[in-house]
Amino acid sequence: MPLPKAEITRLRSLQDKKNREAAGLYVVENPKVVAELLAAGQPLEALYATPAFPAPAGSPPPTLITPAELGRISHLPTPSGVFAVGRLTRATLAPGELTGGLTLALDGIQDPGNVGTLLRIADWFGFSRVLLSPDSADLFSQKVINASMGSFARMRAVTTGLAPALASAATAGLPVLGCDLAGDPVYALAPMPAAVVVIGSEGRGLSPGVAATLTRRITIPRHGGAESLNAAVAAGIVCSALRAR
Amino acid sequence: MPLPKAEITRLRSLQDKKNREAAGLYVVENPKVVAELLAAGQPLEALYATPAFPAPAGSPPPTLITPAELGRISHLPTPSGVFAVGRLTRATLAPGELTGGLTLALDGIQDPGNVGTLLRIADWFGFSRVLLSPDSADLFSQKVINASMGSFARMRAVTTGLAPALASAATAGLPVLGCDLAGDPVYALAPMPAAVVVIGSEGRGLSPGVAATLTRRITIPRHGGAESLNAAVAAGIVCSALRAR
Repeated sequence: MPLPKAEITRLRSLQDKKNREAAGLYVVENPKVVAELLAAGQPLEALYATPAFPAPAGSPPPTLITPAELGRISHLPTPSGVFAVGRLTRATLAPGELTGGLTLALDGIQDPGNVGTLLRIADWFGFSRVLLSPDSADLFSQKVINASMGSFARMRAVTTGLAPALASAATAGLPVLGCDLAGDPVYALAPMPAAVVVIGSEGRGLSPGVAATLTRRITIPRHGGAESLNAAVAAGIVCSALRAR
Repeated sequence: MPLPKAEITRLRSLQDKKNREAAGLYVVENPKVVAELLAAGQPLEALYATPAFPAPAGSPPPTLITPAELGRISHLPTPSGVFAVGRLTRATLAPGELTGGLTLALDGIQDPGNVGTLLRIADWFGFSRVLLSPDSADLFSQKVINASMGSFARMRAVTTGLAPALASAATAGLPVLGCDLAGDPVYALAPMPAAVVVIGSEGRGLSPGVAATLTRRITIPRHGGAESLNAAVAAGIVCSALRAR
């Protein structure tokens, strides 16, 4: 049975954040992320697949569609064969939550590839959560999900205004660390059981309200001519230092 | 005077590696990289610019073109206003060169954004050079140049077969370090005045010929669920460790 035109339009529209929010749905086209979501016990609302695509374990019964239909609903130049629809739920921060474990906070990271890479870094280093400022790339965008290589399914991620959350964490005695050109060398960092690492955008750095909450500024010493490091690379170096042993 | 059709075709064709090699030319459309190339004393063969684009200091006299003409020769969805043509010269490795300073070697890194980010990492940490295996993304591709944020203009970069170069460096006593899941923790690395850091692709790791030249395997300990780190993130962590103090 061909996919009705209205359904094609509806599914395709989910590439826009506004439509995702209105529908309460998001899309995953990366087979690896689909498998990770199912492994993590996150139910999928619907799964469309071409006949050639093997249905992953634990998935809802796939709606079989033709490659041409997939081409019409997909965001990708070369669709993978699967188009999963998940229910979009926005996590919220529990009171005092930041005092347990390590947190990576993203302040205005707009490149979705970078946001996905940062979720993966937090996941690798066993961070407890990632916070995203509302002006960072949307957690549920296709490019974020793909770049996370499955960490999207595992990592707790909360979109929230950073300044009030970090200010109350700092007041509770939690180290709030941010990168800066004139701070302590990253090599002086010792592992910490609980802390927040804040990463700003390469172009604009930390927003003033967030910068005001830092309890310690960290510098990655420069030896050559580059003006900056990529935000995810800088985050990797700082997160790694917090796990040194 | 309108740009002749044959010239438009010729300039546009430089987005393909094969045509760049045949013409001995490459293209830069990032104004920052154009300025860095001129600052580094690297002469440009030609510079096309729209009337609104301010000619950078030290540039050859720009050929004025219309935004529509720029749209036809440009690789970018939103052209910057400038289209510079540089002479493509391939650097070669001098005998024994690797024994001086730090080297970052890229083994089959095919994503051009990653290669550009890796040039920037090497530049930030004051590495002496970057080696690219012939199956890595082409150094002179537009995406590599843009992602390097100007480091393309400053960093010595040599495309070369890695295995023979690294084998002779290892024979000369140079540490050749590579990332591996079962090596020494990166936190045990001490700064070194001369060494090679080899980075493989996330998917396939190091090629067997290159892996055989390693004198030491380095691991970035994992604490969470991610299967791998982005290649540039891993390189940043290892390069940073070599500059610890």
